[in-house]
Amino acid sequence: MSLGEFDIIARYFARSSGRGDVLLGVGDDAAVLDTHAGRKLVVAMDTIVEGVHFLADSDAADVGYRALAVNLSDLAAMGAEPAWMTLSLSLPRANEQWLNGFATGLFELADEYNVALVGGDTVRGPLVITVQVAGWVESDAWLTRSGAKPGDLLFVSGIPGEAAAGLAVIQRHILGGEPGAFLTHRFLRPRPRIELGRQLRTVATAAMDVSDGLLTDLKKLCAASGVGAQLNVDLLPESAAMRELFEADDGLQYALAGGDDYELLFTLPAERAATVLSTLQLQQRVTQIGVITVDTEVVCLRNGQPFRIKRAGYDHFAAGD
Amino acid sequence: MSLGEFDIIARYFARSSGRGDVLLGVGDDAAVLDTHAGRKLVVAMDTIVEGVHFLADSDAADVGYRALAVNLSDLAAMGAEPAWMTLSLSLPRANEQWLNGFATGLFELADEYNVALVGGDTVRGPLVITVQVAGWVESDAWLTRSGAKPGDLLFVSGIPGEAAAGLAVIQRHILGGEPGAFLTHRFLRPRPRIELGRQLRTVATAAMDVSDGLLTDLKKLCAASGVGAQLNVDLLPESAAMRELFEADDGLQYALAGGDDYELLFTLPAERAATVLSTLQLQQRVTQIGVITVDTEVVCLRNGQPFRIKRAGYDHFAAGD
Repeated sequence: MSLGEFDIIARYFARSSGRGDVLLGVGDDAAVLDTHAGRKLVVAMDTIVEGVHFLADSDAADVGYRALAVNLSDLAAMGAEPAWMTLSLSLPRANEQWLNGFATGLFELADEYNVALVGGDTVRGPLVITVQVAGWVESDAWLTRSGAKPGDLLFVSGIPGEAAAGLAVIQRHILGGEPGAFLTHRFLRPRPRIELGRQLRTVATAAMDVSDGLLTDLKKLCAASGVGAQLNVDLLPESAAMRELFEADDGLQYALAGGDDYELLFTLPAERAATVLSTLQLQQRVTQIGVITVDTEVVCLRNGQPFRIKRAGYDHFAAGD
Repeated sequence: MSLGEFDIIARYFARSSGRGDVLLGVGDDAAVLDTHAGRKLVVAMDTIVEGVHFLADSDAADVGYRALAVNLSDLAAMGAEPAWMTLSLSLPRANEQWLNGFATGLFELADEYNVALVGGDTVRGPLVITVQVAGWVESDAWLTRSGAKPGDLLFVSGIPGEAAAGLAVIQRHILGGEPGAFLTHRFLRPRPRIELGRQLRTVATAAMDVSDGLLTDLKKLCAASGVGAQLNVDLLPESAAMRELFEADDGLQYALAGGDDYELLFTLPAERAATVLSTLQLQQRVTQIGVITVDTEVVCLRNGQPFRIKRAGYDHFAAGD
C-alpha cells in the first residue's frame, strides 16, 4: 500500500470549507482568496518539529491540533479573527493512521474557528510541520507588543505554568490522577485566546502570546515597548492541579519560565483597567500580575523583595550551541 | 559565539522592505498587511528539504534563492504579481556563514520582484525550509489548471530538461565546461516566469508550473481540466548545452520526466494562439509542444508513433514506499 503525495492531499486535506472568501482552494498551484474592505490582513507562521516542540511518540491528533493552535495564538495576540491556513507537512513516510489522526486534530480546532485550509505542501523529510494562518482585523486598531506605557497594569490570561507542569507529568511518568490528566491536557491542547484578543483589540496598550515562558516573553514585550516591568510573583494565579502534584517553588519555576502556555500577556492603562475588566466576557481568568515601569529592567518581586528564577525561558539557539 | 533565535532574525531577516502595504512586519506576533480593492489575494506555500529538494552540500545562497523561486513559480502559474513572503527556517545550528549566504540568495530574488519578508519562524531542527508567498491578481481573471479545452494548443516556456541535466552534471561530477556550467546554473537558480504569467492571465485557458516533470505535470493539468493531450516530443525545444553533454535519449528523458524546470505549461485556444504569441513580450522562448484532446489520456508521440518514457516524474511518497 503506497499513498502518493496527491492521494494524501485528496484523502486528508482537500475539504470544502464553506467559506465564501475562498475562491480557489487546495489543488491548484496556489489559492485565490477574497479580501475584506475596511479590514487589514494579519499573518503568522509557526513551525513545530518532532522532538523539539512535541514528543516523538505524540498522538497524531494532538500534533495536528498543536500545529494550528500555536498559530492561532499569534492571531489572538493581534486581536485578529482567523480565516485561512496553509500547511506544510514534511513526513518521513505516508502512514495513513498518523495522517488520519493529524487531520482529525487539525480540523477539530480549524472547524471551531471556521479556518479553511487553502493550500500547502506535502514532502518527504523529517517530521516538521509549518502552518501559516491569516486572519482579519478592523482597520482602526490591532494589538502589538510595542504600545505598553509606564504605569500600565500588566495582566495574563489563564494560569501560566500548567502546560509546562503537564509536560513534566508526561516526561517524568508522574502518576498524577485527575490533576495529572488535567495538566497533561493543558500541555497537549493549548487553547488560543482568540475571543479575549478580539475584546482587547481596541483597549489594551500592548499584547503578546506567552509561548517561550512568561518572564522571557515579558522581557520581549518590554523591549519592544521601550519600558520595564515589575512582576509580582505573589499575584500569579495559583493552579489547584499543580499544587497537588508539585512543590510551590517548582510551580513558580513553571509559571515564570515553563513555556508552552499560549496565554495572552497584555497591558491596560491603570485608569481604565477596572472598567475594561468589568466589560470583558471571559472564558478563562485574567489576573493582574504587575505593572509597567519607566526603568527598562524587568524585575520579579516576591514578598516585596527582588526574586530570581533558576533558569530563563526557551530560545532555540541560545542553549547548548 | 552563540546566536539566539532573536539575534538571527534581527541580523539576517529583519529588513525594511519599502513596501507601503506592510503595516507591521517582522518582529511582532504576526504581520499586518494592507489589501488592494479590486484585486484577489493569491497564496502558495512550498517546502524544500535538505537531501530531497537540494543537495546536502549546497551553497547556502542557492538554497535561499530556491526556497523563494519555487514559490514565485506557483504565483507565476496563477498570473499573480508577488508581494510578501513568510519564512520558516528549521536549522540544526546557528551557522552565521550559512545564514548570511542563505539570506543573500533569498533577498537577491526577493528584491528583484519587490517581495517583502513580513514574518516567519526560526527553530532548531533538521534543515527544512518553508516559504509562503502571497501576491495579487486582478479580480477579473486568474489562471488555473482546470480550464484547458479540447483543441487548445499546448505550450511550454523555456527548455524543459535543462535543470534535470544540470543536476546530473553535479551529481555525476561531469566535467562539462561552459555547457555544464550553464546547465548547473539552470538547476541551481530556477527563474520564476512571473512576467509570462502576468501576460497569460487573461488569454491562457489553463496554466501550471512544471516542477515534478513535464509529463507528470501535464497529466495533472489534463486531470484538472477533464481532458487529455497529445504531446509531440519532436516539438520539444532543443538545448544546445544538453546536446553537447548528453545522448539525445537521455535529453528526452530529462525533458519529459526530469523535474525542477519551473517553466510554465499552458494552453491557448487554437484560433487565438498566433495572435496571442505575437503580442507576448518574452524573456524566454515559448514552444508549442502538443494539443489538448477530448480523450482523457495523455499520449506522447515521436515521429507520429506512440512513445513511452523510461520513468515518470517525481512523487514524494510514491517511490520506494
